[in-house]
Amino acid sequence: MSAPLRVGMAGLGTVGLGTLTLVRAQAELIAMRAGRPIEVTAVAARDRGRDRGVDLSGLAWFDDPVALAQAGDIDLFVELMGGAGDPARASVTAALDTGRPVVTANKALIAEQGIALAMLAEARDTHLAFEAAVAGGIPILKALREGLTANAIGEIHGILNGTCNYILTTMRETGRAFGDVLKEAQALGYAEADPFMDISGTDAAQKLAILATLGFGCRVASEEVLVEGIEHVDPTDIAFAEELGMRIKLLGIARLGPEGLECRVQPCLLPRSAPLGQVEDVFNAVVAEGDFVDRLVMIGRGAGAGPTASAVVADIVDIASGRTAPPFGRKVAELGQARPVAPEARTGAFYLRLMVRDQPGVIAEIAAVLKAHDVSLESLLQRARDPGQAVPVVMTTHETTEAAMGAVRADLDHLASIVEPPRILRIESF
Amino acid sequence: MSAPLRVGMAGLGTVGLGTLTLVRAQAELIAMRAGRPIEVTAVAARDRGRDRGVDLSGLAWFDDPVALAQAGDIDLFVELMGGAGDPARASVTAALDTGRPVVTANKALIAEQGIALAMLAEARDTHLAFEAAVAGGIPILKALREGLTANAIGEIHGILNGTCNYILTTMRETGRAFGDVLKEAQALGYAEADPFMDISGTDAAQKLAILATLGFGCRVASEEVLVEGIEHVDPTDIAFAEELGMRIKLLGIARLGPEGLECRVQPCLLPRSAPLGQVEDVFNAVVAEGDFVDRLVMIGRGAGAGPTASAVVADIVDIASGRTAPPFGRKVAELGQARPVAPEARTGAFYLRLMVRDQPGVIAEIAAVLKAHDVSLESLLQRARDPGQAVPVVMTTHETTEAAMGAVRADLDHLASIVEPPRILRIESF
Repeated sequence: MSAPLRVGMAGLGTVGLGTLTLVRAQAELIAMRAGRPIEVTAVAARDRGRDRGVDLSGLAWFDDPVALAQAGDIDLFVELMGGAGDPARASVTAALDTGRPVVTANKALIAEQGIALAMLAEARDTHLAFEAAVAGGIPILKALREGLTANAIGEIHGILNGTCNYILTTMRETGRAFGDVLKEAQALGYAEADPFMDISGTDAAQKLAILATLGFGCRVASEEVLVEGIEHVDPTDIAFAEELGMRIKLLGIARLGPEGLECRVQPCLLPRSAPLGQVEDVFNAVVAEGDFVDRLVMIGRGAGAGPTASAVVADIVDIASGRTAPPFGRKVAELGQARPVAPEARTGAFYLRLMVRDQPGVIAEIAAVLKAHDVSLESLLQRARDPGQAVPVVMTTHETTEAAMGAVRADLDHLASIVEPPRILRIESF
Repeated sequence: MSAPLRVGMAGLGTVGLGTLTLVRAQAELIAMRAGRPIEVTAVAARDRGRDRGVDLSGLAWFDDPVALAQAGDIDLFVELMGGAGDPARASVTAALDTGRPVVTANKALIAEQGIALAMLAEARDTHLAFEAAVAGGIPILKALREGLTANAIGEIHGILNGTCNYILTTMRETGRAFGDVLKEAQALGYAEADPFMDISGTDAAQKLAILATLGFGCRVASEEVLVEGIEHVDPTDIAFAEELGMRIKLLGIARLGPEGLECRVQPCLLPRSAPLGQVEDVFNAVVAEGDFVDRLVMIGRGAGAGPTASAVVADIVDIASGRTAPPFGRKVAELGQARPVAPEARTGAFYLRLMVRDQPGVIAEIAAVLKAHDVSLESLLQRARDPGQAVPVVMTTHETTEAAMGAVRADLDHLASIVEPPRILRIESF
């Protein structure tokens, strides 16, 4: 058997320690898979003195990850610090620049700098891999890049943020409000102390941009993704969705059609019985549609020490075995540039919840607004009665355009009988 | 760009023509993926004169697939004829023996001869790949072998036969009997003229043996799989399952635990809301559980020209790109041998349907039999009343052993009030 592959790892948080634990626990299996032992020989982290509950003796210690990346006595650099800026960016750049292959779990870095880093890896004839950056333990990048390699991918969608899925699942199960459930998720470690990246949809948008770049073979920046978070999802809407046989999920949706590229992250209603309707708690799911393979669904754990380490080590083993591919499935020069679909031209079905004064004639007024913009009603629910007070009226539409719904929203704003801004969500079928 | 990879293909049935069509339709994409063009340059099939609706001009024609495999001017041999015997076996052996890499979609051949063929590929320093042999378009072998490479896999289960899943789905939706739906499936091309391999569970057992060998890293022969087909599934049981919130699916289940290896293909009840409960029609699904990644679910099309061709071409592109792995994830010498669990020691919950004479005291008799063997009742349904006539009584048990259920069955056979042999099915939770 060949000499061990020496891994230098920057970042000793949950994922870093999980990776160290996995590499040691499965040393024999991994050596067999890779044809050579894989050993973490050096680490970089901030506080050398802290007890992390994992034995770090015998490892070369670097306070500066860039020093580890460019000067360490290592064959491969693993970046598990996170963040699009330095030191993650500087250390990954330094490693690639010296010809060392890099494995990272850093979705922010790849979403922002992935193309530049892939170009650098090409130029230095080395490798960059980031399976763990998207959907944690689900090997979706490998599936898109290699398993579905012969397909033109037309659509990728999924549940890409476990924190949001946990919060929405718990809200549905308990009827509790968003802020309350978020606090619980933070206490349980399912949400960060600063939850913005997750609940705003930013994290999901970064993952969607990476998936779309790889799947469609064209450059998609996360800024091009239309993003709406879950902070305004109301228990009332979750309850109405349930009554409609649906669930509210934060979905990332990327479509590449003749009319252009559509990328968005939004809380959407989807049928409870659809494959994604059943994906609950912290689980992630990705669905890809290829022209020959049709629909492929992958469901698994999108975060956590074990699943993320599983993906990190799979990338290391691939590189150690010489089983490599361009990080985005083709050379950077071969990545195209897609024309975005105009947001207002996008079509779909919608859910509307209006808080209206319970008085005769209100429904007729609303129906007239929908009719004026050619929006066809699919169902209407007005469960509560409370004469003279505000009660919810929920409607679902047949397929229409964002432009038509924008016009409906503007007109509804002028109706005196509607006492709150309309709540509008998209309905998807998967 | 390098010279084209010349592919010789034996078999011009649905999958062969699908592969030829894909290779041509996606020539540009595939060349970019593989770093070189991939061209089918020679074919072998039985009837040269037949019009197959695909242009075969310009292709070297071989009547004998073995001649193509060993003497053709090709870089890679693709076997799409099927069957564990010759000419599939002889031609794959001939290709490997001359050092040519082989891609096949032949589950019967791999289940029976996979280990011997993998050894030959090793000895000749060439490659053997068979992604299309299991679950069609779902890249599950790649996921197990590479994506989850750092995990010890403890369980693999799934819906591995699209024909059976289509029949069971249609029986449930229409209430029609097995034989009737089978005929329709044959007319639609979802079932073969001779449906034995599919409906007997043999095809699923072959796929399960391949998955278990790769996933667990130990030799599992398809003869070691306990197999029960769907031919005795009754619309009555499907209706009762529905009432219990469950569905009947033909499941392949492989578990490797401290007590040994358990492999079986059986029609089972599982919750409608479980991930596999939602997998309907011709779709396949595979669930793998790894010690670090936890549960990974993959759902997609398990058969058909497009999905199967997608998997065949993915294997070709991997080999053309030098992205190879041992076919069973490790060298043959490193495959272990698992001790099978004694069938009677296996545990689980059960569904029993008894046809009993509708008279007082029958339930008490049955309850006494269960009690005598320590089998605990979870629920009991006796919907129909028809005094003096046979009516169905359905029971579900808590977890017990096969041995206890065997004893229950034997005792029930002696009760005069039970007019048909008990129908017993396993209940699974996924």
